Amino acid sequence: MQIAILLYDGVVALDAVGPYDVLKLMPGADVRLVAATAGPVRTDGPLSLVADAAIDEVARPDIVVVPGGPGAVAASRDERLLAWLRAAHEHTQITASVCWGSELLGAAGLLDGVQATTHWLVHDELARHGAIGVDERVVASGRIMTSAGVSAGIDMALRLVATTAGEDVARRIQLILEYAPEPPFAGAGSAATADQAVVAQMRAGYARSRG
Amino acid sequence: MQIAILLYDGVVALDAVGPYDVLKLMPGADVRLVAATAGPVRTDGPLSLVADAAIDEVARPDIVVVPGGPGAVAASRDERLLAWLRAAHEHTQITASVCWGSELLGAAGLLDGVQATTHWLVHDELARHGAIGVDERVVASGRIMTSAGVSAGIDMALRLVATTAGEDVARRIQLILEYAPEPPFAGAGSAATADQAVVAQMRAGYARSRG
Repeated sequence: MQIAILLYDGVVALDAVGPYDVLKLMPGADVRLVAATAGPVRTDGPLSLVADAAIDEVARPDIVVVPGGPGAVAASRDERLLAWLRAAHEHTQITASVCWGSELLGAAGLLDGVQATTHWLVHDELARHGAIGVDERVVASGRIMTSAGVSAGIDMALRLVATTAGEDVARRIQLILEYAPEPPFAGAGSAATADQAVVAQMRAGYARSRG
Repeated sequence: MQIAILLYDGVVALDAVGPYDVLKLMPGADVRLVAATAGPVRTDGPLSLVADAAIDEVARPDIVVVPGGPGAVAASRDERLLAWLRAAHEHTQITASVCWGSELLGAAGLLDGVQATTHWLVHDELARHGAIGVDERVVASGRIMTSAGVSAGIDMALRLVATTAGEDVARRIQLILEYAPEPPFAGAGSAATADQAVVAQMRAGYARSRG
């Protein structure tokens, strides 16, 4: 079971590492961190993650995970990455995105007519790619699985394990990772239930950043 | 606000990256990934994380986070790391561990008489360091903050932000990370509520691995 997690400049580390640390515990999992070229990849902060292979070396993975981040727009214009995604998707069991990784799937043409989700700040942009935006934390639609923002990649990866390796395996991984979350502020993690003044302020900030 | 996250061979990536992606969103945060020497650090899997500084270069951080992982035992015997931890702790606002990162705090003598938690599989070992084991997901005891296994580092980091930068900041970060978790299997993430046959099997496996 070969699993490719795509890295690119400006990725959010947790988008990649959440699913990584879930999926690597699947029996038989061969997880590869891939990028345009092998070597250190700068995230959107001071941390760099090391890609252990170039995309060309992992041509036919069983599962692909595309994390999100501020770098997703630039990455979604990189035709090499998109060509790799399209070719890989022909043979994957599941092609998945976390957060704004949806932008790469969309640019590759993989979300046309597909139910999908992404980070709440960019949820409206799913329609640009022909996707049917769904307001859920994890959305499975055929062989495409998408998740909401950043931390939702952990929930998605556990669902992905349950789908491909069975619920018992997923439950064991949930226990090893002691995944019994206790977010300190009830409702604060969702745009639907958070302070609406803060949500509006963030939406305005995002709109300004997009020009 | 300088924040040092300690990396070492055999660390679990999510233990470090969960808190990292929370703490780096604090206004004014200067997050440094530190290790015995700067450069790539192998986790307990195929992923390497890049330490951007040696511990000697970050002598007086305001916050220290020590992640856990299978490499924690070896790291807890590295006198250079322990000496750095002891010296840093003299000036930190908070010295924190995720999961088995508690082993390093304990070996450094920082848990003596302190209420603390760690991964459920090694919870009994807190007593070896004079710590008072507490069965909670996040435990604050003076300037020491500890968390349960792996994913609990996210909850801890949000608590840490609330303590040092205020609740409004922590709520915003929870929203940016869309941290409204939906673990797929209720109760499966905690040793208290998971299938007790699986818990016993994992405990036996761990006991065998320790000899």
